[in-house]
Amino acid sequence: MKPIQVGLLGIGVVGSGTFNVLRRNQEEIQRRAGRGIEITMVADLNVARAQELVGPGVTVVSDARAVIANPDIDIVIELIGGYGIAKTLVLEAIAAGKHVVTANKALLAVHGTEIFAAASAKGVMVAFEAAVAGGIPIIKALREGLTANRIQWVAGIINGTTNFILSEMRDKGLDFAVALKEAQALGYAEADPTFDIEGVDAAHKATLMASIAFGVPVQFDKAYVEGITQLGAADIKYAEQLGYRIKLLGITKRRQGDVSKRQADGIELRVHPCLVPAKRLIANVEGAMNAVVVNGDAVGNTLYYGKGAGSEPTASAVIADLVDITRLHTADAAQRVPHLAFQPNAMSDLVVLPMSEVVTSYYLRLRVADETGVLTKVTGILAEAGISIDAVLQREADEVCGESQVPQTDVIILTHDCVEACMNAAIAQMQALPTVLGPITRIRKEELA
Amino acid sequence: MKPIQVGLLGIGVVGSGTFNVLRRNQEEIQRRAGRGIEITMVADLNVARAQELVGPGVTVVSDARAVIANPDIDIVIELIGGYGIAKTLVLEAIAAGKHVVTANKALLAVHGTEIFAAASAKGVMVAFEAAVAGGIPIIKALREGLTANRIQWVAGIINGTTNFILSEMRDKGLDFAVALKEAQALGYAEADPTFDIEGVDAAHKATLMASIAFGVPVQFDKAYVEGITQLGAADIKYAEQLGYRIKLLGITKRRQGDVSKRQADGIELRVHPCLVPAKRLIANVEGAMNAVVVNGDAVGNTLYYGKGAGSEPTASAVIADLVDITRLHTADAAQRVPHLAFQPNAMSDLVVLPMSEVVTSYYLRLRVADETGVLTKVTGILAEAGISIDAVLQREADEVCGESQVPQTDVIILTHDCVEACMNAAIAQMQALPTVLGPITRIRKEELA
Repeated sequence: MKPIQVGLLGIGVVGSGTFNVLRRNQEEIQRRAGRGIEITMVADLNVARAQELVGPGVTVVSDARAVIANPDIDIVIELIGGYGIAKTLVLEAIAAGKHVVTANKALLAVHGTEIFAAASAKGVMVAFEAAVAGGIPIIKALREGLTANRIQWVAGIINGTTNFILSEMRDKGLDFAVALKEAQALGYAEADPTFDIEGVDAAHKATLMASIAFGVPVQFDKAYVEGITQLGAADIKYAEQLGYRIKLLGITKRRQGDVSKRQADGIELRVHPCLVPAKRLIANVEGAMNAVVVNGDAVGNTLYYGKGAGSEPTASAVIADLVDITRLHTADAAQRVPHLAFQPNAMSDLVVLPMSEVVTSYYLRLRVADETGVLTKVTGILAEAGISIDAVLQREADEVCGESQVPQTDVIILTHDCVEACMNAAIAQMQALPTVLGPITRIRKEELA
Repeated sequence: MKPIQVGLLGIGVVGSGTFNVLRRNQEEIQRRAGRGIEITMVADLNVARAQELVGPGVTVVSDARAVIANPDIDIVIELIGGYGIAKTLVLEAIAAGKHVVTANKALLAVHGTEIFAAASAKGVMVAFEAAVAGGIPIIKALREGLTANRIQWVAGIINGTTNFILSEMRDKGLDFAVALKEAQALGYAEADPTFDIEGVDAAHKATLMASIAFGVPVQFDKAYVEGITQLGAADIKYAEQLGYRIKLLGITKRRQGDVSKRQADGIELRVHPCLVPAKRLIANVEGAMNAVVVNGDAVGNTLYYGKGAGSEPTASAVIADLVDITRLHTADAAQRVPHLAFQPNAMSDLVVLPMSEVVTSYYLRLRVADETGVLTKVTGILAEAGISIDAVLQREADEVCGESQVPQTDVIILTHDCVEACMNAAIAQMQALPTVLGPITRIRKEELA
């Protein structure tokens, strides 16, 4: 059988990795797929550089539409990124009857509903293993490996840049700004790191995992997104003393409502720094590595770990999608795994809950005047709000420099679960106390048991 | 569409878990599979108990052949275990045109070649996700998730019983026999624990992973199998002092030959206790949990973690196979994933190397007379054999009780990589030294980097 022909849109870091791995391992891949898979056409604005990368046997064009228009091409790989031209090209490729493989989490998290509907209508596949956690086959695990389960929650370290920064902050006691500079110098963070450090990239990925875990449409606009820019070395140290590590997690959770606790039915979808017990495997995922924990009602917790970015790790996921499509491209729809794990006519209308309705536990750090009765007032406010305390850590008072200054100290409180709205109200009350001297630090905490 | 009908052979721990999860999550599973999946017939020698488990709507028989003969049944789940009647029934089910799902690692590791050939000839699928690492979708990851890669090695904690025992030995400083009794009391080890503690169960699973990773036939008879019964608390303690944990690993590795180092091309396939650097994630997998690390040339290391046994975790894997088959059962062969990941006509004839040709590094513990020159003699033998030393730990001499006794001490040596035959020869020479007082302990070591 002649090889299946693939067109590649955009030959940057991941694109060249894909081209190279596909060529290097072509024999191994063909032995698995039962058919050769070849990138025969590449579109890139820098034609000369692209041609140099792929060599003389491959057609290189500057116009992506020439790839889409080529009747010999069965599969189009989109590695351009972003919401703009990438969206147009993906929709045009689908309209032309091409299967699409993409690593574009931003595009799918925002426009996935439109794209998957177009693909279903046209009878083509859109595969996106590379869009979440790079080389880790987490989409396949969620969509196919855990189909027996009612999935309860998914929590992952799904952004390598921020995990690298947090690892450095902890290892070396650095503050965020210094660790970020180091990450940039080492190539782990981009010159403009906003998407990573503000949690947006992780939220794109969490949005896709939420859809696949629970069978709901992609709803990036409903995700709560909080990055790591406000984290200080002190909180990382205090967390450690209490037996926790701080990780930026993408979390999505199914929530059975409970009226008596002011809790509605729905799905939590959130990205924020999070205390995790140090003994959990995921708390020990260091550097730029990724890991995702999935809790299913039958299987319990499973964890998936590996490189979440980089040229060849991401190429590994792109090519796995090519192999899947090669096997199934002549199959009828019933034989294909649905894009979002659940059949399109069986999607759930469970709502994504606003952050105020999320239930979690908390780490609070208060800068207080070292006076009698401060702790009583603070714990009184929490008790009043029905928030129970798990642990308190009170530091010795700092040395006082000038005569006018009051002795100050840090009070750290770990709470049990409560609704975020309650916690917000309690924090506002505590903040208003005259003995609370600076802004209260609040970091959420998940046991992930 | 009417539900796909499944027949279950053997309703023990995993069988009842499968029945219960399938019923409990039937709506969720149907939303994914696009079609209902129902166990409509069960065969078990204890009919009354089986009927009680499944309730009145399901036909229960004592004769498994009645299930196989039922034309309404599309898929047969074999959960009887062992090589005997299970083999006959699986082959009969295949002959009757049924797809088969099995958790029977022993059967497939020994008779897989015959069974997969029969299935291919008949055009049916034999799925076995549950045969390795219980609820962890490791077969799917290896077979579908990592298809881009030339897999270099796979190493896993794939027996929960032994990992539980090793965790207890380390945590509590117990000797093997005591930890085994505790595991038995807690239900983590069977009354006759031989298959687990001697490494046979892990070797069955490693054999299946080797096939899938490298595209070679199953060859359990070529596997090297060594259990944990000889491990003492002292070795676990010394290992810890050197920064390692001891785990029972199933390892399979592709080996590029190197004539200058007396190394042939081939595949290593071995189960034995193993020192692993304590900082590796897999070294921190505790209790009865399983984890598998896969090294692929493109993706690097990925790790898969979860419950490797138990009723519902194993059921999770069985049902994932049911969903896969439900999707693909009307598909033509090209659309199905090959049983052993590679197309049957593209299997490799790479040989499984004998243990004497395996390359690894070593932990050695020698009980020696505490005299000048002992260490020089020992290290001299290693140097002579071309084995280089990574670290030496010499204990203070033990207190001497009687007058006639020589002061004794432990010498612990970590080596760099060498061929096992070389190490065997060196150990024999060291053992012959009059100053080496007891049998030398040798534990292999893997960096898994």
